[in-house]
Amino acid sequence: MRVRPWFGAGLRSTDGCDRGAAGGGRRSAGRVIHTAVTISVGDELLAGETLDTHGRHLAEALAARGCRVLEHRVAGDDVEAIAAAIRDGAARAGLVVVTGGLGPTLDDVSRDAVADAMNSPLVEDAEARRDLEAWYAGRRRPMPIGNLRQTLRPEAATCLANPNGTAPGLRGRLDDAEVVVLPGPPREMHPMLERVLESLALATPRPAIVVRASGIGESDAASLIESLMERDNELPVATTVSQGILSARIRGRDERDRPRLEAMASTIEAAWRPFTFGRDDVTLAETVGVELTRADLTLATAESCTGGMIGAAITDVAGSSAWYRGGWVTYENQRKVEDLGVDPLVIERDGAVSKAVVTAMAAGAAQRSGADLGIATSGIAGPDGGSAEKPVGTVWIGIADADGVEARCFRFPGDRSVVRARAVAMALQMVRFRATGVEASLLWERAGAS
Amino acid sequence: MRVRPWFGAGLRSTDGCDRGAAGGGRRSAGRVIHTAVTISVGDELLAGETLDTHGRHLAEALAARGCRVLEHRVAGDDVEAIAAAIRDGAARAGLVVVTGGLGPTLDDVSRDAVADAMNSPLVEDAEARRDLEAWYAGRRRPMPIGNLRQTLRPEAATCLANPNGTAPGLRGRLDDAEVVVLPGPPREMHPMLERVLESLALATPRPAIVVRASGIGESDAASLIESLMERDNELPVATTVSQGILSARIRGRDERDRPRLEAMASTIEAAWRPFTFGRDDVTLAETVGVELTRADLTLATAESCTGGMIGAAITDVAGSSAWYRGGWVTYENQRKVEDLGVDPLVIERDGAVSKAVVTAMAAGAAQRSGADLGIATSGIAGPDGGSAEKPVGTVWIGIADADGVEARCFRFPGDRSVVRARAVAMALQMVRFRATGVEASLLWERAGAS
Repeated sequence: MRVRPWFGAGLRSTDGCDRGAAGGGRRSAGRVIHTAVTISVGDELLAGETLDTHGRHLAEALAARGCRVLEHRVAGDDVEAIAAAIRDGAARAGLVVVTGGLGPTLDDVSRDAVADAMNSPLVEDAEARRDLEAWYAGRRRPMPIGNLRQTLRPEAATCLANPNGTAPGLRGRLDDAEVVVLPGPPREMHPMLERVLESLALATPRPAIVVRASGIGESDAASLIESLMERDNELPVATTVSQGILSARIRGRDERDRPRLEAMASTIEAAWRPFTFGRDDVTLAETVGVELTRADLTLATAESCTGGMIGAAITDVAGSSAWYRGGWVTYENQRKVEDLGVDPLVIERDGAVSKAVVTAMAAGAAQRSGADLGIATSGIAGPDGGSAEKPVGTVWIGIADADGVEARCFRFPGDRSVVRARAVAMALQMVRFRATGVEASLLWERAGAS
Repeated sequence: MRVRPWFGAGLRSTDGCDRGAAGGGRRSAGRVIHTAVTISVGDELLAGETLDTHGRHLAEALAARGCRVLEHRVAGDDVEAIAAAIRDGAARAGLVVVTGGLGPTLDDVSRDAVADAMNSPLVEDAEARRDLEAWYAGRRRPMPIGNLRQTLRPEAATCLANPNGTAPGLRGRLDDAEVVVLPGPPREMHPMLERVLESLALATPRPAIVVRASGIGESDAASLIESLMERDNELPVATTVSQGILSARIRGRDERDRPRLEAMASTIEAAWRPFTFGRDDVTLAETVGVELTRADLTLATAESCTGGMIGAAITDVAGSSAWYRGGWVTYENQRKVEDLGVDPLVIERDGAVSKAVVTAMAAGAAQRSGADLGIATSGIAGPDGGSAEKPVGTVWIGIADADGVEARCFRFPGDRSVVRARAVAMALQMVRFRATGVEASLLWERAGAS
């Protein structure tokens, strides 16, 4: 292992490849990095073909280390556009992170762009070349000649080893900023990002609390906490809604604000009760699990219009088998009859999207699985199947337990996927309410429907 | 209705509100708009709290009208940052679209930012005020005083009516660019975007074809079409992978390239056969539906580790009830035994994640639902539950039909959600293969496992 100086920042590097960073022991001797600009690269992102999820991942990882993202950009597979975004970012922030465009194909040009931005010519990295040859040798496959492009780096940059793929990352300096380029595939990008962030000097995290709720409208929720929302307060509250979940985010400046944040979060939770279900990254399904476990209850699902989405949300929670007995996807009426014991005459009389059918489905799911609670959905998600009486967005949700059955009718706005997502959130909130003895109207509920 | 000139572009506008655009009859008399820069606004996006999906929606809508997105940016709730992004965008593109930051709360500052960028003071829009008062009156609710901010617009801009919410959009000109600001909630943003795009002069769409495949690795796939991937070709091919789906996108310059695009797409489809399952926006579940319908077959699901995700993917397809008989979420062993008839001694002997159990699950699902085909999953999605013999990522997928049962073992890389998503894609691909008589190894398959 040769030791050589790292571009003035006092870091060591081995033969151009920043392997030592894996140990996490080295930190930049320079000033602390407080700000970042992140860049996702790919024509497919600007064409609307692929959803850019890297922006959020980078933001989460950086925020967790107290590094504020000033801006995120999406650039196409274009050397000049990427280079310009890197230069702009380096002028504004202490760290620029680029993801994507390091693949072996000719539309992958992030390498060329960083060379251009750093004004440093591309050279072959001997160690990266050995790694790449070893990668293919280990898999007993010939190396496509195109992959040799992946061994190039700007002369003034280093390679970051990639144990999960063929594309090494890149790391260099531009003006006063660190510039890091990571491969696009998440399972290559995520661990490499962790290693790089370990080795950078980052600030202390700014404390933040997010309060989560479901079943209440954003403006109603906002008016309940109006005084807290004023910017005059030093700690701003921001509300957002997504997939039927309402979130209020409060951020402090440093750890000394923690007690005030806690007090504010408690105030919001109280104002939004009974709709609040947790804080930070907790999901509604996780809270349902905690509350069912506390009440020593188990749950079964019977899904028609949600077609398995409630089961999928529940089993997304590791360990959910402790309280989830399983479920039925009874998209077809015959399954509602045979698997859940719904009376076919009732389906004929009231239709599958009805109070009588969802209550029978819920009761059947609970009884047949031996669960304490059964939850069932039946609705018209669209685009077809709506009528004047039951328009698209009409969803009945039924719940059954030892005390009996109950059903609520909703009229969800949105397209098929939005209607289904909202039905999942309201169904889980109904389970929570039932498990904890809460009675309250939910957003989009049609009181008095039958 | 008063008619007044629109900032030199020859458009009419009514009392500051661009209602006439709904008719779609008016078009800018100016030059055709070919390029756009899009901007999503919100601190929650830069904090990694919320996933930015507006970028993709805007890109899709613009690309469909032949308008190329040069860059997408995410800016925080900060007047200067948003104003700078608008100015940069207007200098580069013919259209700047901003989403978000029009809400009633004090952290919503896009209105101030566009006023700043246009150097035009905020004034109250009389019609927007009447609309807002009517909105609350119609709902018999008092108007929160904070909402009055939503009636402000830059003096040199117009308001865009919002039938689905309280925040009007904004439209103005900066240098040679149209600047449009839309509210953040998708059900307000999407229809307003459609109306605005109707009224703008946009270019003819550039033709594009996306070929979709699943079950083959990206580099293997790339090497099969290496010659097509060369940039020397006038029509570039770009490949991407997401959620177990591999996509190859080919773009033409104008409609005259359509025949060549078709030929190239056919070449890729042939090279990737049998893994290709469709083009453009088709999902694997949709193709499964088409092929099952063609073969007059029906399907049932039995899901353990995927917990309802296959059912959810299938029922995401409108009309899937024609070929989907329904399913079981048998996350718990007791359900595998009672609902699907799996022998408890087999579970004891081989474990729930085993060839014998998934084949019995698949056979049970088909038999009990009367479906022609049954597909079943059982695996270790993690983070816990792995062992040396069956590490996290091990998933057995079983399939049953009149010809008998078959099971394959996979070792998927990735975290819990990635393992589950990949299992869904491979299960659906196995159904396709079975329905069409294809025999081929799939990516991540552990040949010879038992």
